[in-house]
Amino acid sequence: MQEIVDFILELEKLKGVTRKNKPIGLSRYENSAEHSWQIAMLAISLQQYAAEPVNIDRVVAMLLIHDIGEIDTGDTIVFAEGGWEERKAAEFVAVTRIFGLLPGSSGEYFLSLWQEFELGQTAEARFANAMDRAMPALLNLNNNGQSWRENNISYERVVDRLADQIQNGCPALWQYLKVRLDTAHAKGWFGA
Amino acid sequence: MQEIVDFILELEKLKGVTRKNKPIGLSRYENSAEHSWQIAMLAISLQQYAAEPVNIDRVVAMLLIHDIGEIDTGDTIVFAEGGWEERKAAEFVAVTRIFGLLPGSSGEYFLSLWQEFELGQTAEARFANAMDRAMPALLNLNNNGQSWRENNISYERVVDRLADQIQNGCPALWQYLKVRLDTAHAKGWFGA
Repeated sequence: MQEIVDFILELEKLKGVTRKNKPIGLSRYENSAEHSWQIAMLAISLQQYAAEPVNIDRVVAMLLIHDIGEIDTGDTIVFAEGGWEERKAAEFVAVTRIFGLLPGSSGEYFLSLWQEFELGQTAEARFANAMDRAMPALLNLNNNGQSWRENNISYERVVDRLADQIQNGCPALWQYLKVRLDTAHAKGWFGA
Repeated sequence: MQEIVDFILELEKLKGVTRKNKPIGLSRYENSAEHSWQIAMLAISLQQYAAEPVNIDRVVAMLLIHDIGEIDTGDTIVFAEGGWEERKAAEFVAVTRIFGLLPGSSGEYFLSLWQEFELGQTAEARFANAMDRAMPALLNLNNNGQSWRENNISYERVVDRLADQIQNGCPALWQYLKVRLDTAHAKGWFGA
């Protein structure tokens, strides 16, 4: 029991990992814990639009744990140039440490879910990755492009980083987003 | 698609609903969105200690949505005197409105999960309620009794409000907590 409690208290730290989006209507930045909650809700709500049939419960579990490595590494914007493999390697070390706090096979279960998400080779992982990529765009589209402007991210870069992954996991969502990204582009909500 | 997006953006507001605990190591108060994420993780991690066999996926879904009514009503500390039924009625109005944003049967699914949690009459609801009650205590036990002190909650009141629900859903967790609550009592971490 103490090992499980230690794990849950370690997870406390994800509430302090800051992302680049601000929650709509708030002046602070979003943290990775509340983001994980919201994309789990997005996945449940959009499940009938998944590109392929998915086990939604595995998608939810994947999304709840997918950012836990950031406890050690911090959040990196998906538009960062280079360093992707190094960051993923560092996150792997982190989740191995953190899930390793758990007794028995629980840690291995979480670690395999985390790897499944990262590899993106199952229907569940593709749908989960689509949710993770889409959520910041949905926030920006309803917040005057806040994080795109602040980080000087161009329209082309957003489309380049989001199109394939969202399309592969949830094509109807990409169709919806593309129209709105174009409108936002016309409004000047992106960086140069 | 737009209806689902409207629902997800409405959920944004749960990130702004403040609770009475502070995340360990942070000076701000916890919000209900990150709390929902953490107790879902607590439930997955503790599932083998559930009082009865549970469908963990339904427990997780229940915990992810259980506080959504607070978008309209705000959070009320579990130790508040009186007004419980009125608050629950107001929360029911709120979740009916919010889940009603969703098309088709998705809203009804969430509403039935919410009611199941509130009624506490299934193994899943009992386990989920135990997680919800235990988490603030786990935080306080590792944060010098922060919210008990700030809200002047006595040891007796904590035990009175937590014992049955945690015992009914997760007896091993109550056993663990009781020893630590007694230690915290000896240290003077409670209100009068």
